Amino acid sequence: MSGSTFGVAFRVTTFGESHGGAVGAVIDGCPPGLELDLEAIQVELARRRPGQSELVTQRREDDLVEVLSGVFEGRTLGTPLAMMIRNRDAKPEAYRPLADRYRPSHADFVYDAKFGRRAWAGGGRASARETAARVAAGAVARQVLHRLGPVEVLAWVDRIGDVQASVDPAQVSLEAVEAHPLVRCPDPEAATEMEARVRAARRDGDTVGGIIRCVARGVPPGLGEPVFDKLDADLAKAMVSLPAAKGVEIGSGFAGTRMSGLQHNDAFVPDDARGIGTRTNRSGGIQGGISNGMPIELAVAFKPVATVFREQDTVDRAGRATTITARGRHDPCVLPRAVPIVEAMTCLVLVDHWLRWRGQVGTAPPVPLEG
Amino acid sequence: MSGSTFGVAFRVTTFGESHGGAVGAVIDGCPPGLELDLEAIQVELARRRPGQSELVTQRREDDLVEVLSGVFEGRTLGTPLAMMIRNRDAKPEAYRPLADRYRPSHADFVYDAKFGRRAWAGGGRASARETAARVAAGAVARQVLHRLGPVEVLAWVDRIGDVQASVDPAQVSLEAVEAHPLVRCPDPEAATEMEARVRAARRDGDTVGGIIRCVARGVPPGLGEPVFDKLDADLAKAMVSLPAAKGVEIGSGFAGTRMSGLQHNDAFVPDDARGIGTRTNRSGGIQGGISNGMPIELAVAFKPVATVFREQDTVDRAGRATTITARGRHDPCVLPRAVPIVEAMTCLVLVDHWLRWRGQVGTAPPVPLEG
Amino acid sequence: MSGSTFGVAFRVTTFGESHGGAVGAVIDGCPPGLELDLEAIQVELARRRPGQSELVTQRREDDLVEVLSGVFEGRTLGTPLAMMIRNRDAKPEAYRPLADRYRPSHADFVYDAKFGRRAWAGGGRASARETAARVAAGAVARQVLHRLGPVEVLAWVDRIGDVQASVDPAQVSLEAVEAHPLVRCPDPEAATEMEARVRAARRDGDTVGGIIRCVARGVPPGLGEPVFDKLDADLAKAMVSLPAAKGVEIGSGFAGTRMSGLQHNDAFVPDDARGIGTRTNRSGGIQGGISNGMPIELAVAFKPVATVFREQDTVDRAGRATTITARGRHDPCVLPRAVPIVEAMTCLVLVDHWLRWRGQVGTAPPVPLEG
Amino acid sequence: MSGSTFGVAFRVTTFGESHGGAVGAVIDGCPPGLELDLEAIQVELARRRPGQSELVTQRREDDLVEVLSGVFEGRTLGTPLAMMIRNRDAKPEAYRPLADRYRPSHADFVYDAKFGRRAWAGGGRASARETAARVAAGAVARQVLHRLGPVEVLAWVDRIGDVQASVDPAQVSLEAVEAHPLVRCPDPEAATEMEARVRAARRDGDTVGGIIRCVARGVPPGLGEPVFDKLDADLAKAMVSLPAAKGVEIGSGFAGTRMSGLQHNDAFVPDDARGIGTRTNRSGGIQGGISNGMPIELAVAFKPVATVFREQDTVDRAGRATTITARGRHDPCVLPRAVPIVEAMTCLVLVDHWLRWRGQVGTAPPVPLEG
Repeated sequence: MSGSTFGVAFRVTTFGESHGGAVGAVIDGCPPGLELDLEAIQVELARRRPGQSELVTQRREDDLVEVLSGVFEGRTLGTPLAMMIRNRDAKPEAYRPLADRYRPSHADFVYDAKFGRRAWAGGGRASARETAARVAAGAVARQVLHRLGPVEVLAWVDRIGDVQASVDPAQVSLEAVEAHPLVRCPDPEAATEMEARVRAARRDGDTVGGIIRCVARGVPPGLGEPVFDKLDADLAKAMVSLPAAKGVEIGSGFAGTRMSGLQHNDAFVPDDARGIGTRTNRSGGIQGGISNGMPIELAVAFKPVATVFREQDTVDRAGRATTITARGRHDPCVLPRAVPIVEAMTCLVLVDHWLRWRGQVGTAPPVPLEG
Repeated sequence: MSGSTFGVAFRVTTFGESHGGAVGAVIDGCPPGLELDLEAIQVELARRRPGQSELVTQRREDDLVEVLSGVFEGRTLGTPLAMMIRNRDAKPEAYRPLADRYRPSHADFVYDAKFGRRAWAGGGRASARETAARVAAGAVARQVLHRLGPVEVLAWVDRIGDVQASVDPAQVSLEAVEAHPLVRCPDPEAATEMEARVRAARRDGDTVGGIIRCVARGVPPGLGEPVFDKLDADLAKAMVSLPAAKGVEIGSGFAGTRMSGLQHNDAFVPDDARGIGTRTNRSGGIQGGISNGMPIELAVAFKPVATVFREQDTVDRAGRATTITARGRHDPCVLPRAVPIVEAMTCLVLVDHWLRWRGQVGTAPPVPLEG
Repeated sequence: MSGSTFGVAFRVTTFGESHGGAVGAVIDGCPPGLELDLEAIQVELARRRPGQSELVTQRREDDLVEVLSGVFEGRTLGTPLAMMIRNRDAKPEAYRPLADRYRPSHADFVYDAKFGRRAWAGGGRASARETAARVAAGAVARQVLHRLGPVEVLAWVDRIGDVQASVDPAQVSLEAVEAHPLVRCPDPEAATEMEARVRAARRDGDTVGGIIRCVARGVPPGLGEPVFDKLDADLAKAMVSLPAAKGVEIGSGFAGTRMSGLQHNDAFVPDDARGIGTRTNRSGGIQGGISNGMPIELAVAFKPVATVFREQDTVDRAGRATTITARGRHDPCVLPRAVPIVEAMTCLVLVDHWLRWRGQVGTAPPVPLEG
Repeated sequence: MSGSTFGVAFRVTTFGESHGGAVGAVIDGCPPGLELDLEAIQVELARRRPGQSELVTQRREDDLVEVLSGVFEGRTLGTPLAMMIRNRDAKPEAYRPLADRYRPSHADFVYDAKFGRRAWAGGGRASARETAARVAAGAVARQVLHRLGPVEVLAWVDRIGDVQASVDPAQVSLEAVEAHPLVRCPDPEAATEMEARVRAARRDGDTVGGIIRCVARGVPPGLGEPVFDKLDADLAKAMVSLPAAKGVEIGSGFAGTRMSGLQHNDAFVPDDARGIGTRTNRSGGIQGGISNGMPIELAVAFKPVATVFREQDTVDRAGRATTITARGRHDPCVLPRAVPIVEAMTCLVLVDHWLRWRGQVGTAPPVPLEG
């Protein structure tokens, strides 16, 4: 029950440690007949890849995905689609001096506490390297989504440290986000400032955190299940399951708690495109846990990276006080590389709920409108 | 796949609509031999109950739970524990005038969109009445927790609108929370101000939102699974699955994203009680998705209640513009009654992960300390 | 993880002990909009009901089902459909003399061994009374099936002890089965002989077992999942999960193992009704774990009822040798009442797989035929 | 939801097509700290391997397993254990002439019917090659079992065609089974006859089926869940999910249905080794779905292999009558190679239920004996 599977209908199981043989994902439940675009998977992986710029970890991984099963003559079979990415630049021995000391705010201690042992090379299973498998799976999910409907899932860096961008979720585009790939912030001025902020942190051997926002446009009303498996609940789980995530908001989030009900409510209005829309979108596209056809909007808080290149107090495996100084190759700021990961998790949740909905209700669209 | 089951090892399935025959919960996987304290379940239900004060909905429900199965001679059998709470003060007909119009920021429209129909009496399945079943199940989970270890789970209202309480999570007690049951805020001054804020909203036919915080003390290190089923991820899902929840934070949350890594890291220190502790607790008791033995701390954002007693713009089922004015009995502020619900969901997550951990690793404690 | 939930998309959770307050089922994932026929549910329950004839247990239960949730204005909502059947004629005290002795070939000992305790009144959770909940859920599943396609699920008693019926699975009808409700065998001569066999056993304080066969006609090709969740694998689990079941066969079963491949293979042939059919049906309508459009045929072996009214050797809870003589009200032969239970489990499996297939592949029928 | 995951606590997901890049398994939930014996995994794979003798398919696969994750310094980490076996002797082109015609009693037609396409090279996902992944996973499960208790799982060929072996389940040993690896029957005389039977079938271009029996000794009482996830129900599913399996029996099975209750019941007796045992074992070690400490005994019916080297009637993808003659490399009898597969599935079920039981009830043994 070690929790490495996500989803109910579109089920993704990931495997792999940071410095083991490979990381990978098995997708069980992928619709058959999808013409799989491998190039598109590599594009997503390239956005997450280490070494993609001078501002991220310099570990060199080409992150080439090998499809081991589930595809025949270029199309998905409907059977498990297994993908593997070799760890080529693993350097486990670099971590041996840290094997007996717990890096602060890393998962070293808790893995020992839980399992009685851990892969001390890099973060082992807790390493962000695992997210390469999520991105590969999410890239498949995005292709499925595109067959199901005209859905667009887009994330960007909204804040780094105190540098806040100004972005209109209704207008933001992938081009704008990728115009500044070093930080993936579509506000050019803020992006420049963010870049400086990250450079300063790196220079100081320190790190910075921030916020990523994500929008999903074109999601039809009806995705999400009552009660526990609400669409926003599953999105929240998906996001908080990411390394370094410490919070999530849907729609108005924490700020909305300061409004009154009259201010906060989204009035329904006739809508040419949707049939029924809302005047405002404080609900973030989800009401009662189910999509309402408006853009889904969420934000994720990422704490600053725990690996700082300064001496820190800690304890060893015997519980004795000691100090530790980081080794290994790390990012001063995780957010630019986390943008495709947030999109991947969003795609996984949306596809899973779409297939669940289709199973229970059928594709003949339920007709909410009565004349 | 309609998503009404929560948990993997300690599985809770709830059922029931607001104005149907009953709401209830079936717990599958409860450890056997637990002397079930029915009175304690009723105490929790009383904290959530409508009509408990002048500041909440005046629907009159005694919320007496009937145990239908799973208990014999006062102890749990290990087989499904079914609990049922009759809906006694259901008044479906009061909602008929609203049957064809969508209440803004309610789930009316999305249920129609998803299922092609809905129980238009009250919120149906989307009503907060469903949470009575969660509280009953959570009260059982709390009793299981108490047998597993000296765990204490405690929530309180931390902010209503702009009225912010000042509470020390390390010191707060149930007595302090219940000293002001109208708002369940342990800061007496803030509690008085909050009460005034809620009264003002009710007088205006308006509503208010706010933040609930929760702490779990005494949780051992090791609960939570790598990757997807992280303890914080499952807590996030649990919280965002609550009606009106729009966000969740673990530990430092969104505020922590403004700190640098050096500031944010929790240094490990020898700890007499725990063996190994941390100097600060910005991680909120969870690192890498696994509890580290420090208090688990989280916060949940609740938007203002959607039912306001003013005329609002909306559309009917045919998508034509119209207006709507609320009917029914509702709370001007959901937070005081949500406190036991947040605790219930926390208990459910903790027990589930404890049993999962015990299954995989065994009760012989893994020994992280080597001498 | 106590295993009281069945199905993936159409999920049924049952609860209840033999002499507790109630037994019941919660169906999560039922398609919405189904006009629920309560009368049809009662008809199925009446076929399983104790006291329906002089040849079955004389426990008096009207087995009236109360729908607690999930239905509104006569139609399913798509939310959990909870059904409860009160235990009215529970007589727990009758079992007290047996509380400390293990009835041979009953579940008394293993429940104690597993849980450290058990509901010693009747079989507790292990009682066949639990199957009332399955029959109620199966009756709902049958109604869903009928909306999905022209599917007919029919079971009958094929053998009791050594009395073998001669039945043509292609021709057998519900009328023929119910023509002799005391044994539910559609072969009149065999039925008469079977009845005599059961009467003889009852007179001797003994019991008899036998075989039930089941056919499902009109199932389209494509139901069932590759590898583990094969349609026949899930049917096998469903059947062997029934009280007293000791074996299951699909199609040619054990007899088919004596044939050669040339004899056993089902040649494909053009078929006016199906497009593609098979000349023989040794596969029992399932190939590679997936339905092929031919009638699904299975057989279930039921051992003789364990409760015999003779003194038997056994041990007490302390492991000391003692004897035991049955008490309570029991059937000399479980098969006639098990017929609707076998049908119910078949319906549950078929609906579950139909919805799973629809979720993954969609309702637009995949086109196997190319011209 | 394509059903390639097995188990609840010890979850195995397999992937791979017969002539794709690889087959493999991901085990999620493996207990940590297990010293993994890779050699033992290869030994099991060698028992299943094609080309191991002149009587099985001559496809040449070394079936070397590569562990991709979940093991560090030779021990399991508790995180997903991924294993991959390359397909080295894949010859997809050999199947092209059959791509548009359905092989009788194979899964070709149903895969097309379900998914709209199929991997026509070999059986694709339906090929018995997938079972290599099961055997690898089962070999890990067996190692976990050995740490949990002195459990021995052993299967053998009990009948081929009409050649019935005489084997005492209480005495049979691995050595006796492997003494005749061409048929894996521990009765030497029967083994010789079986071998002749298989040779005759091969000479005729025909195939034979039969029965495999399996015993699990040393399983403690208490494994298995009430109601649906009964130990025998999960074993039945496990067995019928195997290619060519058409039936399964637990304990007395179909033969037991001819006995009366008095004859069939297993009297409890004091037992020096077990505390409580039974005089006979018609229950096959499972009562009420839960192990009772006696040897678990089951039998599986395997139909004759569908690939016969004679011309057979069939249809093409357009539904037109045609004929087909087998190609590819195939076994005249699948049973000798299926012996380790039956053991593997048994091990998977036992470990899964052991961990589930430990999670719910804890390792402190429940005390059924009261003195």
